[in-house]
Amino acid sequence: MEIFQAEKTLICTSRVPGLQQTTLRVLRNNLGNKVVATDPVGVREGNWVFTASGSAARHAAGFEVLTDLTIVGIIDNWQEDAS
Amino acid sequence: MEIFQAEKTLICTSRVPGLQQTTLRVLRNNLGNKVVATDPVGVREGNWVFTASGSAARHAAGFEVLTDLTIVGIIDNWQEDAS
Amino acid sequence: MEIFQAEKTLICTSRVPGLQQTTLRVLRNNLGNKVVATDPVGVREGNWVFTASGSAARHAAGFEVLTDLTIVGIIDNWQEDAS
Amino acid sequence: MEIFQAEKTLICTSRVPGLQQTTLRVLRNNLGNKVVATDPVGVREGNWVFTASGSAARHAAGFEVLTDLTIVGIIDNWQEDAS
Amino acid sequence: MEIFQAEKTLICTSRVPGLQQTTLRVLRNNLGNKVVATDPVGVREGNWVFTASGSAARHAAGFEVLTDLTIVGIIDNWQEDAS
Repeated sequence: MEIFQAEKTLICTSRVPGLQQTTLRVLRNNLGNKVVATDPVGVREGNWVFTASGSAARHAAGFEVLTDLTIVGIIDNWQEDAS
Repeated sequence: MEIFQAEKTLICTSRVPGLQQTTLRVLRNNLGNKVVATDPVGVREGNWVFTASGSAARHAAGFEVLTDLTIVGIIDNWQEDAS
Repeated sequence: MEIFQAEKTLICTSRVPGLQQTTLRVLRNNLGNKVVATDPVGVREGNWVFTASGSAARHAAGFEVLTDLTIVGIIDNWQEDAS
Repeated sequence: MEIFQAEKTLICTSRVPGLQQTTLRVLRNNLGNKVVATDPVGVREGNWVFTASGSAARHAAGFEVLTDLTIVGIIDNWQEDAS
Repeated sequence: MEIFQAEKTLICTSRVPGLQQTTLRVLRNNLGNKVVATDPVGVREGNWVFTASGSAARHAAGFEVLTDLTIVGIIDNWQEDAS
């Protein structure tokens, strides 16, 4: 599972039906790369989180949701470092 | 789910039957890497989109389609940055 | 789906039974990285192609074939660029 | 399967139900990248381990656990090198 | 499928039951990155091989084995180059 910091909610009006009305969140890793994940946990901007991918992502978001990345937990304390 | 900017439609006469007559779109990420995705949303060149991979890609494209990457939404506003 | 240029056929006498007698092709991306894919399309050396991975690769190659990468189409016109 | 060195246990109070009370471990590869894995083996900080991803990760952790990375073995002797 | 050169057998006493007594092999790609794969083919140190990942890896190793990477063939002739 990968580690990211939560950024803003993603606004997306035009989407496939399979995404439903799921909350989408932009995440940023420590190299600055950004991805989009479904958020069943309810994170806030700035939280450090970790994600599950693949079929685990779909099960975690509710299996009907056609995502490949889902936030599965918020890390209680995280020191971002240079690595 | 990853973030890309849509480029041109891909012209591909010779393909496996499992791809059917699906619309194929060239996508480009912010590092300049290009990939090919199926497009059930109907994007235009220049749109910023995000994609689902794996079995979610096949479900989003119609499960019979043998793709591993499908556009699942168009981002309403996106500022490309250096990250 | 990723974009590659076809190189030579791969010669492989010793293989697992699950690969059967499938044609194997060396592919090269625009960074020079090489991978091996099954080829149900019948490409020629120098063709630009795109591939499906994961379970889509197995369905495209005939589901019994134990591959994780299959050529699913030949691109009609492709200009390799520096990206 | 990838090779990592075990770091500290991850503290995560807020998580999806599908992760259950599984032990989570921060792992670090030889480039310094950090990921999170479930740990059914019981590793100690400093151990060199290898992991399975995808559906194998879920089977190894107990199939109900919504992980995409699970520690599946501890390497008896490992010399980290520059590679 | 990816291309690797076989290195030593991996010694691993403490492992999850799902890995069984499978032979494990350290592989090295042309960038020097090392991974671990199950080996149903019986390779020797120095052989150039290619691997299948994901569910294909489990089928190739015997479906009960919880691996995500399996050696599926030995390449008859391979010239490592700088790419």
